Amino acid sequence: MIYLKSNIWRDLITFPLGDRLARPRVQGLTMILDKGVGLGETRDLLNTSGEYVDLIKLGFGTTALYKDNILEEKIELVKSYGIDIYPGGTFLEVALLQNKLEEFLYLAKSLGFTCIEVSDGTISLSPEVRERAIVRAGDMGFKVLTEVGKKVGECNPPVPVMAEMIKTDLKNGAFRVILEGRESGINVGLYDQHGNFIKDDLDMLLAEIEDPRIIIWEAPQKDQQLELINRFGPNVNLGNIAPDEIMALEALRVGLRADTLKTAIDKNK
Amino acid sequence: MIYLKSNIWRDLITFPLGDRLARPRVQGLTMILDKGVGLGETRDLLNTSGEYVDLIKLGFGTTALYKDNILEEKIELVKSYGIDIYPGGTFLEVALLQNKLEEFLYLAKSLGFTCIEVSDGTISLSPEVRERAIVRAGDMGFKVLTEVGKKVGECNPPVPVMAEMIKTDLKNGAFRVILEGRESGINVGLYDQHGNFIKDDLDMLLAEIEDPRIIIWEAPQKDQQLELINRFGPNVNLGNIAPDEIMALEALRVGLRADTLKTAIDKNK
Amino acid sequence: MIYLKSNIWRDLITFPLGDRLARPRVQGLTMILDKGVGLGETRDLLNTSGEYVDLIKLGFGTTALYKDNILEEKIELVKSYGIDIYPGGTFLEVALLQNKLEEFLYLAKSLGFTCIEVSDGTISLSPEVRERAIVRAGDMGFKVLTEVGKKVGECNPPVPVMAEMIKTDLKNGAFRVILEGRESGINVGLYDQHGNFIKDDLDMLLAEIEDPRIIIWEAPQKDQQLELINRFGPNVNLGNIAPDEIMALEALRVGLRADTLKTAIDKNK
Repeated sequence: MIYLKSNIWRDLITFPLGDRLARPRVQGLTMILDKGVGLGETRDLLNTSGEYVDLIKLGFGTTALYKDNILEEKIELVKSYGIDIYPGGTFLEVALLQNKLEEFLYLAKSLGFTCIEVSDGTISLSPEVRERAIVRAGDMGFKVLTEVGKKVGECNPPVPVMAEMIKTDLKNGAFRVILEGRESGINVGLYDQHGNFIKDDLDMLLAEIEDPRIIIWEAPQKDQQLELINRFGPNVNLGNIAPDEIMALEALRVGLRADTLKTAIDKNK
Repeated sequence: MIYLKSNIWRDLITFPLGDRLARPRVQGLTMILDKGVGLGETRDLLNTSGEYVDLIKLGFGTTALYKDNILEEKIELVKSYGIDIYPGGTFLEVALLQNKLEEFLYLAKSLGFTCIEVSDGTISLSPEVRERAIVRAGDMGFKVLTEVGKKVGECNPPVPVMAEMIKTDLKNGAFRVILEGRESGINVGLYDQHGNFIKDDLDMLLAEIEDPRIIIWEAPQKDQQLELINRFGPNVNLGNIAPDEIMALEALRVGLRADTLKTAIDKNK
Repeated sequence: MIYLKSNIWRDLITFPLGDRLARPRVQGLTMILDKGVGLGETRDLLNTSGEYVDLIKLGFGTTALYKDNILEEKIELVKSYGIDIYPGGTFLEVALLQNKLEEFLYLAKSLGFTCIEVSDGTISLSPEVRERAIVRAGDMGFKVLTEVGKKVGECNPPVPVMAEMIKTDLKNGAFRVILEGRESGINVGLYDQHGNFIKDDLDMLLAEIEDPRIIIWEAPQKDQQLELINRFGPNVNLGNIAPDEIMALEALRVGLRADTLKTAIDKNK
């Protein structure tokens, strides 16, 4: 597959960190955190940079705050670009709290959502209910994402428990597992209060799971994106990207931004 | 009044922190800080989430920086959604410095502004001039907002003085009183240099005023919004909200975001 | 030239810090860092506040990430407002690394870019190659900007060396010299890790160069903009301004925002 074949610069410039996979991708996914972007701006963004987006999450429970016709038009629009769209995990957590799993999935399906995120960032979720949610969503034809990690860093389960959850989720049919990072990337999941990875935890987690490519890393901050690209290459899966950072992230991925251009130069020394 | 009756999820999911008042609201106001949003984006935002907006402030003196036709079209557009619109308080401060109160009010009226903010965040304002500005704006049919608190925290008047100003402003006809928070929420009004409320000052102020619902809290940071929602409930008046945070704030208000979903869960324990 | 003659407030209010030069300006330039703004939003922004923009930089190497037709339309749109547009300096650095200077300039020209930025924020650049790039771009009819300062503060050349580079660049035909500030303004160029100017370095640089008006200061943070406006007046050249800050910066420049209104009041005491 030729990536961005429609850009004339591609004949001239080699991307310093190497090429990206073209869409539809199974690696190098970019997931956007959409906090209520208007219909017009969504259309404009996708027209300009839709090629670099794989998943759009309607953050938190904002799904319940749209007028029906706007929500339906937004879902259709996103899908017309071949991009997956899904309601934020917190929204499903609310439904689970209210014993409405089946109804939630049914309504999400009828509205056209293509993905479901199963998380327990705020609520407690028994392994049985978690499994049922994953399996049911899969049965209904959704691409299933799960998430591990708590919204408050101190509440995170120990790393070996997280690793077990990841394996179990995949066994139950999850397409990818998201590592919690929130919108801030501060004191959440594997990030400390400065937004840096807790290295020991990260290394321990990577030692436990076979293939890091099944993870989508929520990495809202540039330095987090940089560290992941440096470690895993341009085709690492990154999430919770702000809508106005799509192109900037893509430049960072391929070495067309100072930080990763430097990575490429240091490699070739 | 039924809030957001046009959303199909409302039949399924109960909002964890309870319902919001529908527009036109007198409580639970959301005031947006508009730093020069384009006409097209304004139209797009209001089409998608106008239901959650009550007041739009054209921040600082940006009112004087629009081309006339654009400004008039923007004002008309905002008003067509039943949303109030007004020039930033700093702009009136400039007019007061230049002894142009009457002309300012007259021009604002002729352009279609529906609100006026009277503040002294930067200038010194005698109680007499402050009263005259409030009364004159009220006489001309404006909804009058006043603001207490200085742009630099150290310059704030003592809390009892602020409480007196609030009472006097209301007596003079102010609709609501804004508590200064600026765009940053840092070292301003009742916020310290980390953006946290100075608790003693906050408690003292609340002890002095009878009804906290007459305050609009400028609360640009999520943790500030969270603290106010936790303290006063989903229908607290919040200001200086960024345009791209409208939906995120609304989700936070009703418990459809992790932080306040947790509040709701803890309450029900 | 009358600045913003189309705004009715100009007959009423005097701008506290004084007037700005009207476009086309050679001083008081505002340069926007565009990280991939959509075509529709660009049109909307320029329609509303194009008057306050002089230069648009397509940040990093994002130039290579647009579809050809979108890029061409964006360039045409920006130029129709009399605004200069150019590819980020990092992109030219990549081309220089790959020995493609001539081809880069030729393609940029054919696409309609009006400016070229020559920088060495990430790569090492011999004085000879730097000179050749400046001269060649000038010969081809580009307005040439150069940049001094490294992306990582610790790597900055000593101030006297920077001053020499500035003089040499101007002698070689540069229109203006940009002082590096990145998107963050933190620990880069003359900014320390808190985003404050390193005063000794700043004073030393200003002592070395004859006319500070030949510098465009990358100043993404408000306090940086404020310090430069206080020092050099409303018509200082400022760069790396976020697209949604255009009007806010303009208000700051002329004293229609609290910080510089205070400057004006203090001056008149």
